[in-house]
Amino acid sequence: MNNFTFCNPTKIIFGRGMIARLAREIPADKKIMVTFGGGSVRRNGVYEQVTAALAGRDYIEFWGIEPNPKVETLRCAVEQCRAEGVDFLLAVGGGSVLDGTKLIASAVHYDGDAWELTLTGRAKGRVLPFASVMTLPATGSEMNNGAVISNATTAEKYAFYTTYPQFSILDPGVTFSLPPYQVACGIADSFVHVIEQYLTATGVSPLMDRWSEGIMQTLVEVAPKVRENQNDYDAMATYMLSATMALNGFVAMGVEQDWATHMIGHELTALHGLTHGHTLVIVLPALMDVMREQKGAKICQMGERVFGITEGSTEERIDRTIEATEAFFRSLGLTTRLSDEGIGEETIAEIERRFTKRSVGLGERGNIDGKVARKILEKAL
Amino acid sequence: MNNFTFCNPTKIIFGRGMIARLAREIPADKKIMVTFGGGSVRRNGVYEQVTAALAGRDYIEFWGIEPNPKVETLRCAVEQCRAEGVDFLLAVGGGSVLDGTKLIASAVHYDGDAWELTLTGRAKGRVLPFASVMTLPATGSEMNNGAVISNATTAEKYAFYTTYPQFSILDPGVTFSLPPYQVACGIADSFVHVIEQYLTATGVSPLMDRWSEGIMQTLVEVAPKVRENQNDYDAMATYMLSATMALNGFVAMGVEQDWATHMIGHELTALHGLTHGHTLVIVLPALMDVMREQKGAKICQMGERVFGITEGSTEERIDRTIEATEAFFRSLGLTTRLSDEGIGEETIAEIERRFTKRSVGLGERGNIDGKVARKILEKAL
Repeated sequence: MNNFTFCNPTKIIFGRGMIARLAREIPADKKIMVTFGGGSVRRNGVYEQVTAALAGRDYIEFWGIEPNPKVETLRCAVEQCRAEGVDFLLAVGGGSVLDGTKLIASAVHYDGDAWELTLTGRAKGRVLPFASVMTLPATGSEMNNGAVISNATTAEKYAFYTTYPQFSILDPGVTFSLPPYQVACGIADSFVHVIEQYLTATGVSPLMDRWSEGIMQTLVEVAPKVRENQNDYDAMATYMLSATMALNGFVAMGVEQDWATHMIGHELTALHGLTHGHTLVIVLPALMDVMREQKGAKICQMGERVFGITEGSTEERIDRTIEATEAFFRSLGLTTRLSDEGIGEETIAEIERRFTKRSVGLGERGNIDGKVARKILEKAL
Repeated sequence: MNNFTFCNPTKIIFGRGMIARLAREIPADKKIMVTFGGGSVRRNGVYEQVTAALAGRDYIEFWGIEPNPKVETLRCAVEQCRAEGVDFLLAVGGGSVLDGTKLIASAVHYDGDAWELTLTGRAKGRVLPFASVMTLPATGSEMNNGAVISNATTAEKYAFYTTYPQFSILDPGVTFSLPPYQVACGIADSFVHVIEQYLTATGVSPLMDRWSEGIMQTLVEVAPKVRENQNDYDAMATYMLSATMALNGFVAMGVEQDWATHMIGHELTALHGLTHGHTLVIVLPALMDVMREQKGAKICQMGERVFGITEGSTEERIDRTIEATEAFFRSLGLTTRLSDEGIGEETIAEIERRFTKRSVGLGERGNIDGKVARKILEKAL
């Protein structure tokens, strides 16, 4: 097992009717900015619940944080926070709203441009306290310190790290009305978050392997129930809890990590606007195939413990596990090939060029460069 | 899934050589009391590592917190903290040293007797910050807010809740020299901590079921390696991490909980001084048998997922799972019957009398009273 430190101070408030607890979780003297996305919370009752819970409190609203939150939008919120003396941020929405809010919280007291801060990768100095009411289980942002920020001008997308949410409220009831495509992408995103912390070497951190496999098994079991009936509270609660646990450090203790699927996927989003979770299901099966020599033992362990694949030679078990993974993604209603989305050689060449220019070396051994990324993307055609 | 809130702010610092990080984790202006048990840390190198890390810092030492820490001892430490203006506590030892330290931290600013505070069940007002260097994986105390405190005068033992450790340092290397009996009891204790949060109803919180089963599977797999070679770093690291994760709230999200095995076990310790983990392995198989109607479905799930028991009628699978559980405990080198320890009817009668007098109703449905406790203990003879 590798040495590690772990600390996750976020308070999770989970269950029916929990949004009503909002006011008591935010100190009374705070000037609050509530951040929103495009307006779906006006249709699913969340906006009413949040404003009812904040009745009598000093808050302003900021609307319009888009999927793959753009620094161009976030700069406006930063200016408004400075102008109005905001000292607490509450994100109400999905992972993009919260990711954007993390950058806002970090940039208000930063003496420079928000994109410049994003490019440094980490918050510096004072960060405003922030919290969330999470409406779309997927990114795990509600219980981690990461964010992914896009730049529309340069068509770039990078990870950024800051402090943890003070609290996150998760009421599975607010997920009933989500678009099924978003739910499918959320399940896929959660599954691949686990994979990035799991699909490396065997035997490094056996308990974490079990916990990662536990999340994957749970997602595989619950996905058909969610697909069948998004009003099934227990199914949506299980999906929501799995999404949070998939990327909060709980399955990362002492393990190696990969993250190449995410880095390649981010490029597909940056270049084509494809939803994040959807990019992952296109990249992952191809990556498993190209990296089969390095990852074979762990792919076989995953095949056995997650999909019950116990027969055949090592190569056959690897093939069957990759097939089962892609079949699971297809069962969510997602396409799993670049060609399904009209993406081809031009994009592959651009991603190879970007990775080569940045001297990128991805994956747990740093050996996925522009050339290997090309192989993976060609396999994903 | 049941509604829940979760927050665990303890920082875990895990791995080889991590004790050297001590000084930087405690603010420089603190007056520290370092608390110890009976002296084993002088023989395994931990004392030297701790004092080297604290060189130049303002600290005093308090020795002699015993297994099943006694309020009579802890009162002396409380007096000394008050006299010397201590404002940070560092527990160096196993769960008993840390449990005792939790009461000390809570009692220093409490305007009354420490046992009186214990009997209220929860800390009130200001609690001194505290942390730990954990040397015996078992109780999970290093990452939770609970403690179990004994009273030698009245032969009583009760749970007490306070704040969380600010940090805990876990170096698996310091466990190599532990007495094998303590290690066996630690594995058993960790296993039963999971059981208390797991062995109730099925289908309540499916991901938590998987995580609980993951800890149990891991303990079952690692126990023979630990028994064979306590110098196997990776095996001891896996055991140590499993013990911490077994009782830090991570497998308790949205679940029902039992804790009857612990409550009955505490009485056996209070009356006979039997090591805590050892009491649990005597009580649990008998409790599973007596409660088989209520817990049968979950016992079968555990049998299948932890011990691979898939054949036979429901009753046969329950029997085989109970047998496998007891066999696992015996494989640790522990006796699993009251009669093995010379405990008989007199003790059973006393425990029945105590539970009846206190109108105790234990277990997830509150239906384990004095009479049912008698049945369980008779089955454990």
